[in-house]
Amino acid sequence: MRAAFIIFDNLTTLDFVGVYDGLTRLKTMDFDPEFSWEICAVSEEVHDDKGLRMLPTRVGGSLEEFDMVVAPGGFGSRPLLKDEAFLAWLRTAAHCKFKASVCTGSLLFGAAGFLTGRRATTHPNAYDALRPYCAEVVRQRIVDEGDLVTAGGVTSGIDLGLFLCEKFAGAEAKAAIKKQMDYPYGD
Amino acid sequence: MRAAFIIFDNLTTLDFVGVYDGLTRLKTMDFDPEFSWEICAVSEEVHDDKGLRMLPTRVGGSLEEFDMVVAPGGFGSRPLLKDEAFLAWLRTAAHCKFKASVCTGSLLFGAAGFLTGRRATTHPNAYDALRPYCAEVVRQRIVDEGDLVTAGGVTSGIDLGLFLCEKFAGAEAKAAIKKQMDYPYGD
Repeated sequence: MRAAFIIFDNLTTLDFVGVYDGLTRLKTMDFDPEFSWEICAVSEEVHDDKGLRMLPTRVGGSLEEFDMVVAPGGFGSRPLLKDEAFLAWLRTAAHCKFKASVCTGSLLFGAAGFLTGRRATTHPNAYDALRPYCAEVVRQRIVDEGDLVTAGGVTSGIDLGLFLCEKFAGAEAKAAIKKQMDYPYGD
Repeated sequence: MRAAFIIFDNLTTLDFVGVYDGLTRLKTMDFDPEFSWEICAVSEEVHDDKGLRMLPTRVGGSLEEFDMVVAPGGFGSRPLLKDEAFLAWLRTAAHCKFKASVCTGSLLFGAAGFLTGRRATTHPNAYDALRPYCAEVVRQRIVDEGDLVTAGGVTSGIDLGLFLCEKFAGAEAKAAIKKQMDYPYGD
């Protein structure tokens, strides 16, 4: 399993880091030694909406080789919905086996055409914005469509990460990772 | 209120970002327009324990001018407990009005001498390591000592951020920020 964590200017960093923390523990806690990832962007440097600057491990290039693409949200997602160069890049992930989003990351998947005919969710403030892109907006924290898993706002990224840990490595792995993350919440 | 978010090599990024997300919303959601912050390190670039590279907004220099210093944890905190140059830098925060830590960030405060005679907490796996530095290790998610607030492991940073939002701006601000973070957990 090889994952691409997408980052972009004015993302909400917690959207990205919540899912990144849990999921990468599949490797760091030895549940899946083959699990690997890159942090992917279309620019050499990315800044969030509060001043943090991050350096992706990979700039541009096709996302086709990844098994999973993970998209965060944040105010920076909005201009990208009409950014044809960004969307063309994101569409290189069209045939990745798994797609997962946090918050308004699902709008990016929508604009890329990944949600056509699918059920999805997003931040509660963005349900209306998501509607045109998908078959049904589901008011749940996690919406699992098998190869596509969308999550609610910001902190739901943590629940998404743990959900994916269970999906890929089983309930025992998830429980151990949840404990290590000192996360007493969720199911 | 001016806050310094400390970052260092091999930190757990979620420790930092969980508290940073909530607390900085005091400004971005207009509860405290005067709230400002810097991301502070002793090196020009910092990498976490999973490959993410970050650029601090401030490198070195005294932390004395800040009203609050916030320390994350992670495996990278361990070598710093004996790093006299780092500890000398951290001690420039000795007279900051507030100190807050997530996870093993409290060990850093301990090594800097900030916990002498105080009650504190940390990641459950690190209770023994914390004991020599403080008067009492408290097995709680948040331990509030007025000018010193320590939190449990990793995800407790989110609860810490929300706790500090209430402490500095009241229950209404906290509730609004919690809702915007789509965080249904905690009190």
